[in-house]
Amino acid sequence: MKTNRREFVKTGTVAGLGIAGIGLTVTNTFGQKRAKSKDAIIRDPNIVRVGFIGIGGRGTGHVHDSLTVGGIEVVSVCDLSQEAIDNVQKMVIKSGGKAPKGYTGSPHAFEQMLKNEVLDAVIIATPWDWHVPMAIASMKAGVPYTGVEVSAANTLEECWDLVNVHEQTGNQVMIMENVCYRRDVMAILNMVRKNIFGELIHCRCGYEHDLRGVKFSVDDDEIKIGKEAESEAQWRGLHSIKRNGDLYPTHGLGPIGIYLDINKGNRFLTLSSMASKSRGLKKFVSDHTKKDDTYREINFNLGDIVTTMIKCANGETIIVTHDTNLPRPYSLGFRVQGTNGIWKGEGGGDWTDAGEQIYVEGQSKEHTWDKAEEWLKKYDHQYWRDKGDQATGGGHGGMDFIMLNDFFDTVRNKKQVPLDAYDAAAWSAVSALSEMSVARGGALVDFPDFTRGQWIKRHPSFAKDGKFPTAPEREYIENLF
Amino acid sequence: MKTNRREFVKTGTVAGLGIAGIGLTVTNTFGQKRAKSKDAIIRDPNIVRVGFIGIGGRGTGHVHDSLTVGGIEVVSVCDLSQEAIDNVQKMVIKSGGKAPKGYTGSPHAFEQMLKNEVLDAVIIATPWDWHVPMAIASMKAGVPYTGVEVSAANTLEECWDLVNVHEQTGNQVMIMENVCYRRDVMAILNMVRKNIFGELIHCRCGYEHDLRGVKFSVDDDEIKIGKEAESEAQWRGLHSIKRNGDLYPTHGLGPIGIYLDINKGNRFLTLSSMASKSRGLKKFVSDHTKKDDTYREINFNLGDIVTTMIKCANGETIIVTHDTNLPRPYSLGFRVQGTNGIWKGEGGGDWTDAGEQIYVEGQSKEHTWDKAEEWLKKYDHQYWRDKGDQATGGGHGGMDFIMLNDFFDTVRNKKQVPLDAYDAAAWSAVSALSEMSVARGGALVDFPDFTRGQWIKRHPSFAKDGKFPTAPEREYIENLF
Repeated sequence: MKTNRREFVKTGTVAGLGIAGIGLTVTNTFGQKRAKSKDAIIRDPNIVRVGFIGIGGRGTGHVHDSLTVGGIEVVSVCDLSQEAIDNVQKMVIKSGGKAPKGYTGSPHAFEQMLKNEVLDAVIIATPWDWHVPMAIASMKAGVPYTGVEVSAANTLEECWDLVNVHEQTGNQVMIMENVCYRRDVMAILNMVRKNIFGELIHCRCGYEHDLRGVKFSVDDDEIKIGKEAESEAQWRGLHSIKRNGDLYPTHGLGPIGIYLDINKGNRFLTLSSMASKSRGLKKFVSDHTKKDDTYREINFNLGDIVTTMIKCANGETIIVTHDTNLPRPYSLGFRVQGTNGIWKGEGGGDWTDAGEQIYVEGQSKEHTWDKAEEWLKKYDHQYWRDKGDQATGGGHGGMDFIMLNDFFDTVRNKKQVPLDAYDAAAWSAVSALSEMSVARGGALVDFPDFTRGQWIKRHPSFAKDGKFPTAPEREYIENLF
Repeated sequence: MKTNRREFVKTGTVAGLGIAGIGLTVTNTFGQKRAKSKDAIIRDPNIVRVGFIGIGGRGTGHVHDSLTVGGIEVVSVCDLSQEAIDNVQKMVIKSGGKAPKGYTGSPHAFEQMLKNEVLDAVIIATPWDWHVPMAIASMKAGVPYTGVEVSAANTLEECWDLVNVHEQTGNQVMIMENVCYRRDVMAILNMVRKNIFGELIHCRCGYEHDLRGVKFSVDDDEIKIGKEAESEAQWRGLHSIKRNGDLYPTHGLGPIGIYLDINKGNRFLTLSSMASKSRGLKKFVSDHTKKDDTYREINFNLGDIVTTMIKCANGETIIVTHDTNLPRPYSLGFRVQGTNGIWKGEGGGDWTDAGEQIYVEGQSKEHTWDKAEEWLKKYDHQYWRDKGDQATGGGHGGMDFIMLNDFFDTVRNKKQVPLDAYDAAAWSAVSALSEMSVARGGALVDFPDFTRGQWIKRHPSFAKDGKFPTAPEREYIENLF
């Protein structure tokens, strides 16, 4: 194969304007100019050239797992921390690669990187507020594939920005929702598509994760938040002071959105959200400070439990839970319920967990849950059959590896991203919409249709390859459109 | 003790007008006259004279368990079925009692019974539509204690009728919500009152029970509904044709209402309900009929899953699920979550069930559920410590026995009923309110305050005796009011 970046076909809704050629000075869609001469040497077109923006804990994990996936060149990395850059450079060299160029020194250093480097893909793992500005800059800079961490967007305006810039540039953005790639989640997807649960009626999901020790950094029982703190506590906890809604809906809604064909034959119509009172974080501060500590002055807007009900165009309902301020074991609280059966995925992600249960009418013993394990093994997804052994060393039990493998495969083969701008917008929109509904005491609010009506005709496409094709009756109805 | 029905102290909100004396012709509150002469013989005042209205499966169970509880005389029974009356008469004779008088021949035969008999208590176990008319008639006839099956009321008007007639007559009505007496539910109540879970933040409950074989009578795979059917299928299934809301909220909301001190320091403020599409019953009909069967013409208004979010005055949220049309194992889907810990009660009611899990910060292993059993044993309620062995043969794993024992103890000792007209109204109101909200796509609707503001000052009273008194800090706050 020849090296020719012009071959990167645009698969977005709107045809793209072509990407910067090699060794030319080009003007991209938005009038920015840049020189691309350093890319002129002959190179292997199967090697994906990646730049990473944000290499904190999460971003560094992505570099590590991307190197394990292979077939990539870490061209550049960008972070405020020179130490993080040094670490990642060492990691890449150790893996046999060339030290990636480091960009640092300003929160806007990423703009320089996007201007200077020729990249097939950018991966963004920064604080929430930066996801959309960076993803937009990446698309506008002509990067054909941008992967952005969850939640992708914080406001409705940001949701629209992702969609609009994707459509305007023809460049693609993928929401890197790793739970869509969790082994049990993908096996359930096979079962859903094979109609094992019948017609889907009701789903549940959530983020039930005691984050008190993440929203605050804890050191020798001393706690810190905001600028004084370390790691995620520098910014993540601050959202709980100002905002009251489902701040982190996509780990649950990603998988459920896939099961229910959201944006591809179905869509979210309306939601109603209620927040409980806020006590958990105040109590956490009280438990970890002395009487006169100024932290005790902080009031937290975020209700401890925020529950959201969503109605879908095809008549299904979804319950989404946000539960991050109280002591409890971790769970994403999955439920998928149809006319033939039900999956309860309340474990921590391991499919042998006791919280993983399945009941299928006519196959399970009457009135009795099956442990899910046998079902999940039987319907194990092709991705995991093929790469499961390799994945298992990777982040979050291997799902990060499987996701990155899918992402780079998409980039390498110039395909449509499996989780696209419309998914990023619809799933992330729950944050802003739930804040509106909570503020009105649980009043209904409407979802924007980010696809502008295209959801009616679009077909499900996520992770469709493999051993378990879609049931013929489902395929038939999809193909009417 | 002397026999004197005048001694029955009225404990309702409004002082009663006194009950029919013995051997007198009296005019009660509502002007009805009746002769009471047959009651003139000296009798043991500790024997509670009971009349049963409705002795189908449920009512007959109540007679049986009431006889096991002891200290009662089954004075009369009323049912449309003479066969049912014959059976119960035999049952009472076999237990050493005198055959109760049978009333039958018309749906209004109960009026005759209420007019003729001197009763300390009436227990009503009839189809839902009859609960309130019969309870009202019983209170108006001067019966001091009326127990009524769940749900107590179907409409808001009926909810108000229960409250208003109770207040007008001074006679009491108890909603016979047996799940409030389930062994795990009562142990959790002890834990709640002892502050083991901390301040309560969020609760869940529901009725997740595949009722397809109850809404239809099934015989040799032939199904029937309505007038053509047997048992509950004669009437219960019909509600699913006409109504779309949470038709049966009290098994879950009873316990949660007790935990959250609803009507006694707290109240339900607003709710929002969404219904999924309706598929389960139509599919059930399709699976059990031939192509030209007229049953296939029936459309069912009831969405398969109806979810309700409730906001309470004290800031807690509650999620209530109604799930009766789809295949699944039984559960009441309990969750009680506070600032210190959480109970997940998703088993079938047996506290050894794997679905029963507890996590308490500082006591449970970090991030790990405890099997609930040890906790529940430790906090076993006094009622079960005292009567558990005797109860276990009774209906629904013994909770019916514990409930009836509490009811008759209340009657015998002229106490305030543990689950009163306000509870019956507030819990049952969720049916009507959820229908309104569902019809508006999930819009918020307001709860009436059935206590007319008295909830602010009323104190929790349900099952307060025993080994685990309320934590001093809770008691202190209660006593400010």
